Amino acid sequence: MDALPMVERDPALPERVTIYEVGPRDGLQNESGIVPVDAKVAFIHDLMAAGLPVVEATSFVHPKWVPQLADAGEVVARLPMDGAVPLPVLVPNERGLDRALEAGVRHIAIFASATETFARKNLNSSVEDQFAMFAPVVARALDAGVDVRAYVSMCFGDPWEGPVDPAQVVRVGSRLLDLGATQLSIGDTIGVGTAAHVARLVAEFAAAGVAPDLLAMHFHDTYGQALANALAALRCGITTFDASAGGLGGCPYAESATGNLATEDLVWMLNGLGIEHGVDLPALVRASVTMAQVLGRESPSAVVRALA
Amino acid sequence: MDALPMVERDPALPERVTIYEVGPRDGLQNESGIVPVDAKVAFIHDLMAAGLPVVEATSFVHPKWVPQLADAGEVVARLPMDGAVPLPVLVPNERGLDRALEAGVRHIAIFASATETFARKNLNSSVEDQFAMFAPVVARALDAGVDVRAYVSMCFGDPWEGPVDPAQVVRVGSRLLDLGATQLSIGDTIGVGTAAHVARLVAEFAAAGVAPDLLAMHFHDTYGQALANALAALRCGITTFDASAGGLGGCPYAESATGNLATEDLVWMLNGLGIEHGVDLPALVRASVTMAQVLGRESPSAVVRALA
Repeated sequence: MDALPMVERDPALPERVTIYEVGPRDGLQNESGIVPVDAKVAFIHDLMAAGLPVVEATSFVHPKWVPQLADAGEVVARLPMDGAVPLPVLVPNERGLDRALEAGVRHIAIFASATETFARKNLNSSVEDQFAMFAPVVARALDAGVDVRAYVSMCFGDPWEGPVDPAQVVRVGSRLLDLGATQLSIGDTIGVGTAAHVARLVAEFAAAGVAPDLLAMHFHDTYGQALANALAALRCGITTFDASAGGLGGCPYAESATGNLATEDLVWMLNGLGIEHGVDLPALVRASVTMAQVLGRESPSAVVRALA
Repeated sequence: MDALPMVERDPALPERVTIYEVGPRDGLQNESGIVPVDAKVAFIHDLMAAGLPVVEATSFVHPKWVPQLADAGEVVARLPMDGAVPLPVLVPNERGLDRALEAGVRHIAIFASATETFARKNLNSSVEDQFAMFAPVVARALDAGVDVRAYVSMCFGDPWEGPVDPAQVVRVGSRLLDLGATQLSIGDTIGVGTAAHVARLVAEFAAAGVAPDLLAMHFHDTYGQALANALAALRCGITTFDASAGGLGGCPYAESATGNLATEDLVWMLNGLGIEHGVDLPALVRASVTMAQVLGRESPSAVVRALA
């Protein structure tokens, strides 16, 4: 059946949210299959046509680390990087920034860590040293008129260190804002947080002078908490949510489904809550079904499976 | 990693909830495999040992309709029906009640419909006529000192009728309470509701004089909303939640995963929220893993997959 009619919006919730679509980058980089350039470009166009207001297109990380996105240059060359819909690109370092600027990228994202172990394993850095690494990337991007989003990973728990101190996350996030990032994407990279942890972290940011409108929330469904956490975040005044079309990046057949929150499942909830987002759900589902066919497997999104 | 430490409980949420475990009945009746009696009895014992405060054990529906539970008499004969943990049994009609009373059942559940189409298809009745059908079942149960829970199905949407009017749900629920049911289990049978619809329905019940403590919530994950809806219901004062160990009843490989909320995913959230429930999560996960092995497939519960 179609969605239920909206209920009158709870005034404690925002009127409108921005869905930051991460499927083509965060989703596809975590899929085992390699998707052809044509299919990626078509997917991004489909997502824009479905009304997603921002679509992270790819990553200029070295192909040795992420072979799934080795075609970043080709993908970007075939996208309207100056169009009305921002198409940010992940940039790991200055070399990546060089490639992005040459390619005409107008929005970048950097990927930081809230924990020492993940900083060492993923960035070959420490928490402290990552700022020195990112400083010239951010400064040069801003000089070129390119805005910078900063992902903060492992904001709730870390597989090696366990629970992460919210004060540490706020310190890391604040330093990234000081460098010039315009938005923080607060990642529950391993999906262990619950609604209560989300509310506490948003409150700690607010106490440090970082308002909810500077934060995006990036939830993973490893423990099934992603959508409940999004509901809790809405109640805290968060208005930007990362989500992955079709739940890309989380394989339903894997031992541990560590996927991103599916954009469709988020949209279904927002529709019910009467919160505007501008996304056409049937068009989005069609885009995700097409990509699932390219990948040769069913979508992990409950809404996609129910509607497709 | 282990769960994050609890956060101080939000005073808007209840201190303690009751998890009404439906896996052995609602879960197994929706699995394609037939589970041997020994495995069912062991599973129910495992669930009691894990701290579940109530476990719906089986159904005395005719085996023609639910062959998965054709062994209800044998299962009940091997369970401590007079023990400290209530082990309710679903009873469709007077013939089922006769069997249940002979078997020493102390708690029953009846299964009603909020919509005409589902009443016709599932009960071969109308919404109005179902009360006449249930009246002698409830009266005779109460006379025998057996308490009665009433499931109300299709409380948010119906696959044939679309959106369901909350006033209709309240009318059906109130009639069942008038008959003598002591608790209503409000079922989103096809999983279409969102947090907003949950809040509205609880408010409509309250306006009709039915307090939240008479309601249990029974969510399905068809559209990924189950846990977010549970979070919303907590905020409305609901303190009883139906859940299915390991997400039994929803196959992760099916076209449409229409499963029950997984008990483990609910427990993970409640642990984070600092809400007491009395369930030992590792013991529960072990019970679900054992049952998944009996069924020969992976659990659809995210927490079970992440921890197992």
